[in-house]
Amino acid sequence: MPEYICGVDLGGTKINTGIIDYNGNVLESIKVLTNAQEGAEAGINRICESILQVLKLTGLQIRDLKGIGIGSPGPLDTKKGIILYTSNLPGWGNIHIIDIIKEKLKIPVKIINDANAAALGEFLFGEGRGINNLLYVTISTGIGGGAVIGGKLYGGANSNAVEIGHMTIDINGPKCGCGNYGCFEALASGTAIARFAKNFIESGRDSQIKFLSGNEPIRAEHVFEAARNKDKLALEIIDREAFYLGVGIANLINLYNPQRIVLGGGVSNELEMFYEKMIDTIRKRALKSNVDICEIVKTKLGSDIGIIGAASQFIL
Amino acid sequence: MPEYICGVDLGGTKINTGIIDYNGNVLESIKVLTNAQEGAEAGINRICESILQVLKLTGLQIRDLKGIGIGSPGPLDTKKGIILYTSNLPGWGNIHIIDIIKEKLKIPVKIINDANAAALGEFLFGEGRGINNLLYVTISTGIGGGAVIGGKLYGGANSNAVEIGHMTIDINGPKCGCGNYGCFEALASGTAIARFAKNFIESGRDSQIKFLSGNEPIRAEHVFEAARNKDKLALEIIDREAFYLGVGIANLINLYNPQRIVLGGGVSNELEMFYEKMIDTIRKRALKSNVDICEIVKTKLGSDIGIIGAASQFIL
Repeated sequence: MPEYICGVDLGGTKINTGIIDYNGNVLESIKVLTNAQEGAEAGINRICESILQVLKLTGLQIRDLKGIGIGSPGPLDTKKGIILYTSNLPGWGNIHIIDIIKEKLKIPVKIINDANAAALGEFLFGEGRGINNLLYVTISTGIGGGAVIGGKLYGGANSNAVEIGHMTIDINGPKCGCGNYGCFEALASGTAIARFAKNFIESGRDSQIKFLSGNEPIRAEHVFEAARNKDKLALEIIDREAFYLGVGIANLINLYNPQRIVLGGGVSNELEMFYEKMIDTIRKRALKSNVDICEIVKTKLGSDIGIIGAASQFIL
Repeated sequence: MPEYICGVDLGGTKINTGIIDYNGNVLESIKVLTNAQEGAEAGINRICESILQVLKLTGLQIRDLKGIGIGSPGPLDTKKGIILYTSNLPGWGNIHIIDIIKEKLKIPVKIINDANAAALGEFLFGEGRGINNLLYVTISTGIGGGAVIGGKLYGGANSNAVEIGHMTIDINGPKCGCGNYGCFEALASGTAIARFAKNFIESGRDSQIKFLSGNEPIRAEHVFEAARNKDKLALEIIDREAFYLGVGIANLINLYNPQRIVLGGGVSNELEMFYEKMIDTIRKRALKSNVDICEIVKTKLGSDIGIIGAASQFIL
């Protein structure tokens, strides 16, 4: 009886592959670049090579694995194992990724949306243990979500539920990568933080952010660093982030009525910076009946959540 | 073995009480005014009298009923059977309605949110039969929703999930009764239609709506009537309604990924007027993967849905 599972966290930039046991411990993991622009075939080859390499590191064989679980940006057709299209993996449209990997490695393969994977991982091994109505929210380059309701992943009609990043919160807001306007993601993701900073600086606002970013494009991290140094513009942008996050999360509380929300993703590492104002906005905007029973916490699984969650498909 | 159920549709204006059989047929029903301002005690007495009266009409006794199901505006504590607070029933805060009715009539009593009740009714007897991921949306004085997922009502942590009327869609929008700004309900309910018309007319816009409403306050019905007569302002307001509904429903499609959405409530009676533009907005704003598998239909259960849904608590 196989006692291990392989988890593959397929991202726009990196592929993170690891082996976990049934207690959610990561035995070994490796990261390689996705190089998405080289196309799906090359990318899937890199995934397979990573799996074989990480197996070698652990001294295990393919037959020691119950299966390979993949977490991927969506939307997906999880039943057929297809990546339908995703802005983070250009050229990867309509890719039958499961069939290809099954064929190569002769082992069961499953795929789910990366945020759904993280929700599963939190439910089994993280801050979601014992929680009957759990919502996981990742705030990173984009914003994604997953819900575990009554011990089951809430997939919706075709596994594309909880696409919270593409919820309109400002009907007149900026255009989002999905084609819609004023999406939660277009206003509160790490990318949005960087864009606000860039626009303010280009319009002549003075700020440390400019110097911290040097010759690189401005990233959310530069804004956080400047905010820690009490830079005025950076603090304004953090306040704005707290507000937009608060509005979006208030919506989620009204819509899903979760018992707990676990926040993950790069931006949530800096949660302390905007927590108070975010909670204040949530309290003003969500129904009291729903806010009062909802806890908001930060993930403790770190960057391994992607691997653990993807592998969790073979546990839950 | 009792073969009938009593359903009570408790609204801000009217209490609609009926007896249904296990096939969802309404044997008899009666309507009385809620007179909410007289307080909860008087209102609950009227509910009990209505139940006894409608029983008399059917020739049945209390012992022929499996129970009494109540559908009420929320938020509620459904487990304890409490109406927590609701803007439609002023002064009814923290009312232990179930205990009071149980005590008076000596029969099991259950309560759920009115939109959840309607979702149950649609799932069992209406347009939701056989649908695994069903969303019911009522567009009326307010906007409410209910979801039936895998044959179960999606209640959330404390039965207050799917409060879709209080989802922010315009961060800078008008103030809603709930205290938040730019709620779906504040922009796309029947009340919002009437408010837009009133504001336009007060600002000097010429329209039939003014004459159709006469000395009464403007209602959504006046706008619909004027629109049927090709009144320019009315058609503009209908277009706006189609747009706001489209934005809100696009969010619901991204968030819940339903297989079918059933629309109910007074405004949805006029669905043909704004259907095309609403669908157009949904297609532009929701994810293709989710839109393509979602059907949007109108309820066929008419105004009895409230009774049938409330009673359905004793079936599902």
